[in-house]
Amino acid sequence: MAETIYDSLTQLGGPASIPASPDQAVLETVRNPHPGTLYLVRFAAPEFTSLCPITGQPDFAHLVIDYVPDELLVESKSLKLFLASFRNHGAFHEDCTVGIGKRLVDALSPLWLRIGGYWFPRGGIPIDVFWQTGEAPDGLWLPDQGVAAYRGRG
Amino acid sequence: MAETIYDSLTQLGGPASIPASPDQAVLETVRNPHPGTLYLVRFAAPEFTSLCPITGQPDFAHLVIDYVPDELLVESKSLKLFLASFRNHGAFHEDCTVGIGKRLVDALSPLWLRIGGYWFPRGGIPIDVFWQTGEAPDGLWLPDQGVAAYRGRG
Amino acid sequence: MAETIYDSLTQLGGPASIPASPDQAVLETVRNPHPGTLYLVRFAAPEFTSLCPITGQPDFAHLVIDYVPDELLVESKSLKLFLASFRNHGAFHEDCTVGIGKRLVDALSPLWLRIGGYWFPRGGIPIDVFWQTGEAPDGLWLPDQGVAAYRGRG
Amino acid sequence: MAETIYDSLTQLGGPASIPASPDQAVLETVRNPHPGTLYLVRFAAPEFTSLCPITGQPDFAHLVIDYVPDELLVESKSLKLFLASFRNHGAFHEDCTVGIGKRLVDALSPLWLRIGGYWFPRGGIPIDVFWQTGEAPDGLWLPDQGVAAYRGRG
Amino acid sequence: MAETIYDSLTQLGGPASIPASPDQAVLETVRNPHPGTLYLVRFAAPEFTSLCPITGQPDFAHLVIDYVPDELLVESKSLKLFLASFRNHGAFHEDCTVGIGKRLVDALSPLWLRIGGYWFPRGGIPIDVFWQTGEAPDGLWLPDQGVAAYRGRG
Amino acid sequence: MAETIYDSLTQLGGPASIPASPDQAVLETVRNPHPGTLYLVRFAAPEFTSLCPITGQPDFAHLVIDYVPDELLVESKSLKLFLASFRNHGAFHEDCTVGIGKRLVDALSPLWLRIGGYWFPRGGIPIDVFWQTGEAPDGLWLPDQGVAAYRGRG
Amino acid sequence: MAETIYDSLTQLGGPASIPASPDQAVLETVRNPHPGTLYLVRFAAPEFTSLCPITGQPDFAHLVIDYVPDELLVESKSLKLFLASFRNHGAFHEDCTVGIGKRLVDALSPLWLRIGGYWFPRGGIPIDVFWQTGEAPDGLWLPDQGVAAYRGRG
Amino acid sequence: MAETIYDSLTQLGGPASIPASPDQAVLETVRNPHPGTLYLVRFAAPEFTSLCPITGQPDFAHLVIDYVPDELLVESKSLKLFLASFRNHGAFHEDCTVGIGKRLVDALSPLWLRIGGYWFPRGGIPIDVFWQTGEAPDGLWLPDQGVAAYRGRG
Amino acid sequence: MAETIYDSLTQLGGPASIPASPDQAVLETVRNPHPGTLYLVRFAAPEFTSLCPITGQPDFAHLVIDYVPDELLVESKSLKLFLASFRNHGAFHEDCTVGIGKRLVDALSPLWLRIGGYWFPRGGIPIDVFWQTGEAPDGLWLPDQGVAAYRGRG
Amino acid sequence: MAETIYDSLTQLGGPASIPASPDQAVLETVRNPHPGTLYLVRFAAPEFTSLCPITGQPDFAHLVIDYVPDELLVESKSLKLFLASFRNHGAFHEDCTVGIGKRLVDALSPLWLRIGGYWFPRGGIPIDVFWQTGEAPDGLWLPDQGVAAYRGRG
Ligand SMILES: [Ca+2]
Ligand SMILES: [Ca+2]
Ligand SMILES: [Ca+2]
Ligand SMILES: [Ca+2]
Ligand SMILES: [Ca+2]
Ligand SMILES: [Ca+2]
Ligand SMILES: [Ca+2]
Ligand SMILES: [Ca+2]
Ligand SMILES: [Ca+2]
Ligand SMILES: [Ca+2]
Ligand SMILES: [Ca+2]
Ligand SMILES: [Ca+2]
Ligand SMILES: [Ca+2]
Ligand SMILES: [Ca+2]
Ligand SMILES: [Ca+2]
Ligand SMILES: [Ca+2]
Repeated sequence: MAETIYDSLTQLGGPASIPASPDQAVLETVRNPHPGTLYLVRFAAPEFTSLCPITGQPDFAHLVIDYVPDELLVESKSLKLFLASFRNHGAFHEDCTVGIGKRLVDALSPLWLRIGGYWFPRGGIPIDVFWQTGEAPDGLWLPDQGVAAYRGRG
Repeated sequence: MAETIYDSLTQLGGPASIPASPDQAVLETVRNPHPGTLYLVRFAAPEFTSLCPITGQPDFAHLVIDYVPDELLVESKSLKLFLASFRNHGAFHEDCTVGIGKRLVDALSPLWLRIGGYWFPRGGIPIDVFWQTGEAPDGLWLPDQGVAAYRGRG
Repeated sequence: MAETIYDSLTQLGGPASIPASPDQAVLETVRNPHPGTLYLVRFAAPEFTSLCPITGQPDFAHLVIDYVPDELLVESKSLKLFLASFRNHGAFHEDCTVGIGKRLVDALSPLWLRIGGYWFPRGGIPIDVFWQTGEAPDGLWLPDQGVAAYRGRG
Repeated sequence: MAETIYDSLTQLGGPASIPASPDQAVLETVRNPHPGTLYLVRFAAPEFTSLCPITGQPDFAHLVIDYVPDELLVESKSLKLFLASFRNHGAFHEDCTVGIGKRLVDALSPLWLRIGGYWFPRGGIPIDVFWQTGEAPDGLWLPDQGVAAYRGRG
Repeated sequence: MAETIYDSLTQLGGPASIPASPDQAVLETVRNPHPGTLYLVRFAAPEFTSLCPITGQPDFAHLVIDYVPDELLVESKSLKLFLASFRNHGAFHEDCTVGIGKRLVDALSPLWLRIGGYWFPRGGIPIDVFWQTGEAPDGLWLPDQGVAAYRGRG
Repeated sequence: MAETIYDSLTQLGGPASIPASPDQAVLETVRNPHPGTLYLVRFAAPEFTSLCPITGQPDFAHLVIDYVPDELLVESKSLKLFLASFRNHGAFHEDCTVGIGKRLVDALSPLWLRIGGYWFPRGGIPIDVFWQTGEAPDGLWLPDQGVAAYRGRG
Repeated sequence: MAETIYDSLTQLGGPASIPASPDQAVLETVRNPHPGTLYLVRFAAPEFTSLCPITGQPDFAHLVIDYVPDELLVESKSLKLFLASFRNHGAFHEDCTVGIGKRLVDALSPLWLRIGGYWFPRGGIPIDVFWQTGEAPDGLWLPDQGVAAYRGRG
Repeated sequence: MAETIYDSLTQLGGPASIPASPDQAVLETVRNPHPGTLYLVRFAAPEFTSLCPITGQPDFAHLVIDYVPDELLVESKSLKLFLASFRNHGAFHEDCTVGIGKRLVDALSPLWLRIGGYWFPRGGIPIDVFWQTGEAPDGLWLPDQGVAAYRGRG
Repeated sequence: MAETIYDSLTQLGGPASIPASPDQAVLETVRNPHPGTLYLVRFAAPEFTSLCPITGQPDFAHLVIDYVPDELLVESKSLKLFLASFRNHGAFHEDCTVGIGKRLVDALSPLWLRIGGYWFPRGGIPIDVFWQTGEAPDGLWLPDQGVAAYRGRG
Repeated sequence: MAETIYDSLTQLGGPASIPASPDQAVLETVRNPHPGTLYLVRFAAPEFTSLCPITGQPDFAHLVIDYVPDELLVESKSLKLFLASFRNHGAFHEDCTVGIGKRLVDALSPLWLRIGGYWFPRGGIPIDVFWQTGEAPDGLWLPDQGVAAYRGRG
């Protein structure tokens, strides 16, 4: 097929193993095909898992990431591998969620970004963490993430 | 009002404190107004709590009880007090659910009974317990209890 | 319009006040237009209310009635008035639900009938009552009533 | 029937085959019957499919388009054919969604438009894309699109 | 395109007006492409309306039809026109639902058929009607129709 | 009963046939019992049907009307008859929805009004139409109409 | 137990019959334990019923009341009895909903109040009524009442 | 990694283009790792599309396939490609659904198989098709497919 | 593992019994790992129970707490124990909900906090209580708590 | 506390790290407190993850396990650790699900057991696997697992 903005990518298409840690993961980017157009990209990642840094037990979360691209888009396979790199990494809920958001900000320099972390309950009490880089840009369409509230049983 | 099948009750109407333990709770009964008619009575009790006998931590459950009365109905206020008597009582999930069912069988001698215990998750894994006294009687109408499955987050 | 099976009815079409009690209500019937055909008629009555015979306080229920007509159908306006006649009548949950079913059996002599009473909670515990006249006829299609389980809050 | 604003249309009513590509599709318009009235038209298109430009594999999306007509309405059959023209066309998620929106803007010169693209997951992570032409006009009624969040399994 | 089992149809493809009454509607059929294979075809028709034969007021229903073809399939456009022919026709709920089922039985001679009529409430009480031609054939897969129960408000 | 604001009505209570067209329908009004109080009245009309002016085929919609009364309320039976008068009337989706809203504005001179038309899909794509008379008055409580988004199948 | 802000109440704890009419009902109050703190209290009352003043037929509604207390809280048992006093009282939907709100305003002098009345359908069309005393106070947290839209059947 | 039952596969892992037609698609199989164990495998395929053989317009369906393996499992990437091969292929709803089931039976010789096809509406009426090879084996656990019923709008 | 901000905690990790009363519970804190970053932390606590101070009967609630940390985070196990300490403590709904919020404000000095208390019904009427410390900070992302409205039965 | 059936356990209460592989995990058991009583225990495990043995990429599943104890119950913390031991283990969906079921059968010798594996989609197509040890015992109450069907987007 024709030359594309994806030609420089190293992880897409070929086999790619899970990075051993978030530090070793590489967030790759592609040029935004609509620079100057204010739009939102949302990723839902219901398959996130990390470890509790105190007990070593697995934690699970459903993450949703919203961002407004400036010059760069994140390449989605590299995002998937970055998220998978937390598999054997210890991280607290609040820190991990905000940290993933900041890592994306570093890689993409987006016009705006937010991340919601919806964690599975521990001790009967789930934690959600919500961070954004600031007020959303004027004129942006920003739907609710719509993740269901936790309700226990019954 | 007129004399009723409720006249012998001691807990209904007046103030009644929570029994200190299940042993001290009294399940009161009234005469079945439709003896010989095969019908089902269902109680949903989403406000159940007991203690973990190992750790002393609170446990919570949504209980649903179905029974087919023979000569007796359970008086619902005494049922409420009986369930509340587990508040400071230690009980394992499997044992507690089946035990409540058996206690009701002793008090009511119903034609048939079942109990579903839908417990809040511990360690990320909720336990449900389902017990019935045997095959449901022929000709009984027995709808599903319809309690939603646990799904974690997202 | 043409003469119909509804011509003998006294309550349909004209103004009709709520009967003062169930005893004064009249369940009117019309001839089954498909005698010999085994089919089910379902009424959902989410607007049912009666009084507690002990306390005089209002009770509310969602009732669902399923029946298989033999020679007669119940006329639906007379059914509505019959149900409304419980408005200032005292009745226990179990008794009232089964009693309404039996009253319909008397009026219709149906091939089969069942009634589900889904009562609003008292003391945190709702009661459901399920009665049917026996095993459903062979070859009848009988869908679940599909009324949601009670779940408290959250 | 009477002469209508639809008389100039070429695709409506007769047989119409899928255009071979978006370039060959024609978005037809009709005069807005309520010019000067600020109202919103919403199309939900759950039957959208295109191809991945890298792998050639099919992609699927649920699209929802909202716009405020100025002098023109889009004729809905031509919209359907335009969307169907992506069937064998390669397009990235972000680019495709914004591009469809811009194509409609070119054809309709609406007072305002937005498009939401809700794409099926790839690599476990669905992408949603949200674009609008700017702040919605003052006084416009603009309900949420209400498309459910992705949640994986369970 | 190639000659098909649809070649004899008179309503498909061309313009077709709503028949003035059910009597004037024609249910067209095509040969079953899998004769001797026991399978079920389901139609959901949420756009059904007729008139009350007493008051002349409109009635609405959601109909679901399940059948097991023998030698014939119903052609779906003729089914749509047949259902639309009740638009200005007076029909009672019970009679109309069963009557539509019987009309399809006459036209298709299916191995088995059932129809569920889910009518909008009148007087606060909706009526559902369920009819089938008899026990479903052994070995047939017959999912629940899954139409939500009526619940009033709240 | 006592003299009321409803005494001048001509359609309420007695038998009333469906007007032959919207032009022949009469929207009757009653005096607002709370003039000077800013409140909202909502009607949900899931039983709306009209005809396609091109093909003559039936269309169906779920309409929701919100308005803030000034001196007049619409009498609900006359509203029902007005909506029923579209039964054999040809109307495009966008035009019909906005037109019903404007007709109500003419009859009621409300402080504010909006109408949402949620039309059943044609060609796989449903159309929704949303119109309001302008910004809602300051201090008005205006909940979302909460009508579910269309989602196709699955 | 210790002396409380509830000591002056006359209806709480003892038996209390339904007042014969709203006029005879007494809304009792207790001192706000958090005066000067801006918070919201919500009551959901799905068990409301009154009579139609024209026909005498029962009406049903689901009411939700939100208020911001100033110096007084409403005592909830007296609220329940007040609502029950409409049982045999004639009241139009719009008038009744707004009137209950105004009665509470008289009794509580709250900083702010709103009431939503979600009425069961009559003639296929339910009415909702929404009233508030004015703009909500700055800094108040005021969630949506979240009552489901009416949808008829299917 | 170690030699596996997947070693003979030709489509898995490498790039694979969509077969031009169902005839050219190859359903590959692997050995059942639990032969002699009666278990069920379910595939949900919400991304299915084909063409109408009469009009050439796209059709969409949500397919769910259940089977009990004997000696072979279907390799899931080859299944995905087989389903994608209908993209530019004309097929009627009833024929297509049953035909896919029979093609899988030919390839797998399963102990039992069923397929549900849930098609998007045409003319306002969706079609579902349900076929199974016969009665399910005794002792098989066979949950409902749980696909929501179509409901139009509102 | 490495030294962490959790090193000073006394309740985490070891066995911890339920404090006898809220006064005896200790809310422990840890340093905020992202000071200066405006983000929200949400806890859902569906397992809350206290006693009615008048009757001594158990009350149940689903609590949701949202806060914006300044220098401190609450340690979640100490939060769980604090909430559990209400188990045998008498507290009115309005007072208890606001009081828990204020206790957290004292312990955390957050930039902002809100608490929603969703109480199970008593007398057929549930109470919700909503309190926040003031307007949410500019630029904060604050999703709706999304707790379902109470609806009684049906 | 008193001596219990849990006294022989080695993993409960103390710290326990994730076993390196399923082979190294130990499923511990306790004596069934109700031997001879036919009841069902259900575990829902929405936090399951393993690796694809071909690609090394993470897989996720929601597992639900139902069993009827004979002499032994599984200790739930050891079950949690056993499931967590698949975290870095390669396993195919069909094999893994059935294999977990068989491992539990070996450890518990239950009267009956079934396991449902609901896997997250790969290639747009999720796989579910359902296995049980045979027909459920007569007289057992066995509710549906109630896990929602996958539906893609929209
Ligand atoms: Ca929203
Ligand atoms: Ca519950
Ligand atoms: Ca059921
Ligand atoms: Ca999820
Ligand atoms: Ca069912
Ligand atoms: Ca909305
Ligand atoms: Ca809303
Ligand atoms: Ca809203
Ligand atoms: Ca809300
Ligand atoms: Ca199921
Ligand atoms: Ca089922
Ligand atoms: Ca419908
Ligand atoms: Ca929201
Ligand atoms: Ca909201
Ligand atoms: Ca209801
Ligand atoms: Ca079930």
